[in-house]
Amino acid sequence: MSVLPQPLRTLWLNAQEELQVINQIVLPHKVQVETLSTTQEVYWAIRNMLVRGAPLIGATAAYGIWLAAKAAPENDWKNSLALAHAYLRDARPTAVNLSTCLDRMRAAWQACYSRAEAIQACRYQADAIVKEDIEICFQIGQHGLKIIEEIAARKNGQPVQILTHCNAGMMGCIRWGTISSPIYQALAKGIKLHVWVDETRPRNQGSKLTAWEFEQHGVPHSLIVDNAGGHLMQHQLVDMVLVGTDRTTREGDVANKIGTYLKALAAKDNNIPFYVALPSTTIDWSINDGLKEIPIEERDSEEVRFVDGLTENGQYEKVRICPENTPARNYGFDVTPARLVTGLITERGFCAASREGLEGLFPEKK
Amino acid sequence: MSVLPQPLRTLWLNAQEELQVINQIVLPHKVQVETLSTTQEVYWAIRNMLVRGAPLIGATAAYGIWLAAKAAPENDWKNSLALAHAYLRDARPTAVNLSTCLDRMRAAWQACYSRAEAIQACRYQADAIVKEDIEICFQIGQHGLKIIEEIAARKNGQPVQILTHCNAGMMGCIRWGTISSPIYQALAKGIKLHVWVDETRPRNQGSKLTAWEFEQHGVPHSLIVDNAGGHLMQHQLVDMVLVGTDRTTREGDVANKIGTYLKALAAKDNNIPFYVALPSTTIDWSINDGLKEIPIEERDSEEVRFVDGLTENGQYEKVRICPENTPARNYGFDVTPARLVTGLITERGFCAASREGLEGLFPEKK
Repeated sequence: MSVLPQPLRTLWLNAQEELQVINQIVLPHKVQVETLSTTQEVYWAIRNMLVRGAPLIGATAAYGIWLAAKAAPENDWKNSLALAHAYLRDARPTAVNLSTCLDRMRAAWQACYSRAEAIQACRYQADAIVKEDIEICFQIGQHGLKIIEEIAARKNGQPVQILTHCNAGMMGCIRWGTISSPIYQALAKGIKLHVWVDETRPRNQGSKLTAWEFEQHGVPHSLIVDNAGGHLMQHQLVDMVLVGTDRTTREGDVANKIGTYLKALAAKDNNIPFYVALPSTTIDWSINDGLKEIPIEERDSEEVRFVDGLTENGQYEKVRICPENTPARNYGFDVTPARLVTGLITERGFCAASREGLEGLFPEKK
Repeated sequence: MSVLPQPLRTLWLNAQEELQVINQIVLPHKVQVETLSTTQEVYWAIRNMLVRGAPLIGATAAYGIWLAAKAAPENDWKNSLALAHAYLRDARPTAVNLSTCLDRMRAAWQACYSRAEAIQACRYQADAIVKEDIEICFQIGQHGLKIIEEIAARKNGQPVQILTHCNAGMMGCIRWGTISSPIYQALAKGIKLHVWVDETRPRNQGSKLTAWEFEQHGVPHSLIVDNAGGHLMQHQLVDMVLVGTDRTTREGDVANKIGTYLKALAAKDNNIPFYVALPSTTIDWSINDGLKEIPIEERDSEEVRFVDGLTENGQYEKVRICPENTPARNYGFDVTPARLVTGLITERGFCAASREGLEGLFPEKK
């Protein structure tokens, strides 16, 4: 039996100062804690989505640099850390947090005079990234809560119906989560709500992670296939769409799990607000046009051809859902243009998905 | 080993005059022919999607009435057939072909004076429904071919990229299929094309049936998750969307497999033509507003919570993709409003998705 920290979080250091993460590949069928002891293990964990979600990827990579510092040779530690930086940055391409967190780690170690100092600085910086994520997600929750409260006020005691895609919950962050934080805070205030959880093929982060996380936290929810959201919106069964993002441009274009764009189109067509909850760490201030500038990861086609889960006998199995030789393609993300986004919920408050909106909240980025 | 008829079809009578169908539940992992010997077996086969697709459901039900006539008591056959009619009509709610074919069978037997005559009339009528479907689908192919040819002319030798959802191929009809017929005829003319096949959760008719059917017929294709189509369209990787329908209203609203509406929205947003191929037998002339008037089947939530396929060891297994107690909802179809449909391809030709368009092709329905 794994011993999970209370309150639940996705990444922590244990009493022996070892880096611990919840293995998100085997959820929900097994709750398994893994120790990541080397930079290579951190790379593998990010690459293979043992940890996933933009903020969590960034934080895990930060500790990967700390591990690299501890393992670096005394006389060549700066070079080792530069190599670890380049190595980890390539683990996954779409989320911007990975490179921002790594750059932040580099700034920390570059100011150091010795390996011992670098180890301390890296540890301090990685801890700071984690603490900030927890605080940021809590603040996102405060601002998102207001939106949920406003809708609840119009619902005459009926539950607020929220649709989400993929997992931008606690499981993609450290605690709280970006979209989960407003939901948990609304529930804590006694607001009735219900979440439609897109299964989110091909990797089913919705059915595996979001459904599990919501069960842990007592959030009323129903699992649906990714195809169903449009129908629900046509029939007034959704009050708001709330998703996360892996990278948001200065103009407010939003890259998120493949299929998000389709839900944004349906929300627009049915006059349903479409909100994106994001820590400012996922904003890429260096780019404007998401469709042209955000690299979209193409993953192994076996993720499309196979689905994994638990058999009736409790065996974990992968099953092929197509003929043996069917070719497949597997695009990991899509970009929702700013024009389809009702607003962005950040740790500093709510803003329009536009340059003006974002720069209004983050004037230092002008 | 099953002996399949050549050319391939989905339903036939064997030398012993037994009703034979391809079992579409076990495809693509097993090719298995089933004999349907009673009206109850026909009901079960339709209800549990051993046969599926609007035209094939209608044709199978027609033979179900013939089987009922053969089994009916000499002195009470009319009553028996009326009961069989009501029974089969309830097998599935969304496709209109089921009730139109059954009503056609009723008209045939009601004109009869004896059970023997009714058996003959029912057999004649069911055979006619099958023959007509084959001819209708061939004609749809002729008209659809022109559209594909026009696009091919602009592609400078690059393949025409078609996106489809669910299976409106041969496997949903008797032969040819509605969307497959133009594709097969285009290939026969040497036109280069490639089809993006949506897997079509929850039952994966795309990955199981369309991929299998295209492999049998040598159609170049790639399997994708249902989430991917929007991204492909944003990046000019789709030249046309081509889907079938389970019921089309007089105004041109189109009910089809859940998720079709999302693809229609993406096509509109990216100026990609969205075509629906349909035999006129799927038009419900009695209704106008698809969103309000077409009943949407809600199926067992276990179809969402489980996915079936073949394990590495060649075992057929169902795996659960969510926590044990996750609740799920399973809506089978959605309605694409006529405003999102570029045009309808029927056996009489191409028309706008509107009352004027449809009545222009079918003036006798005015």
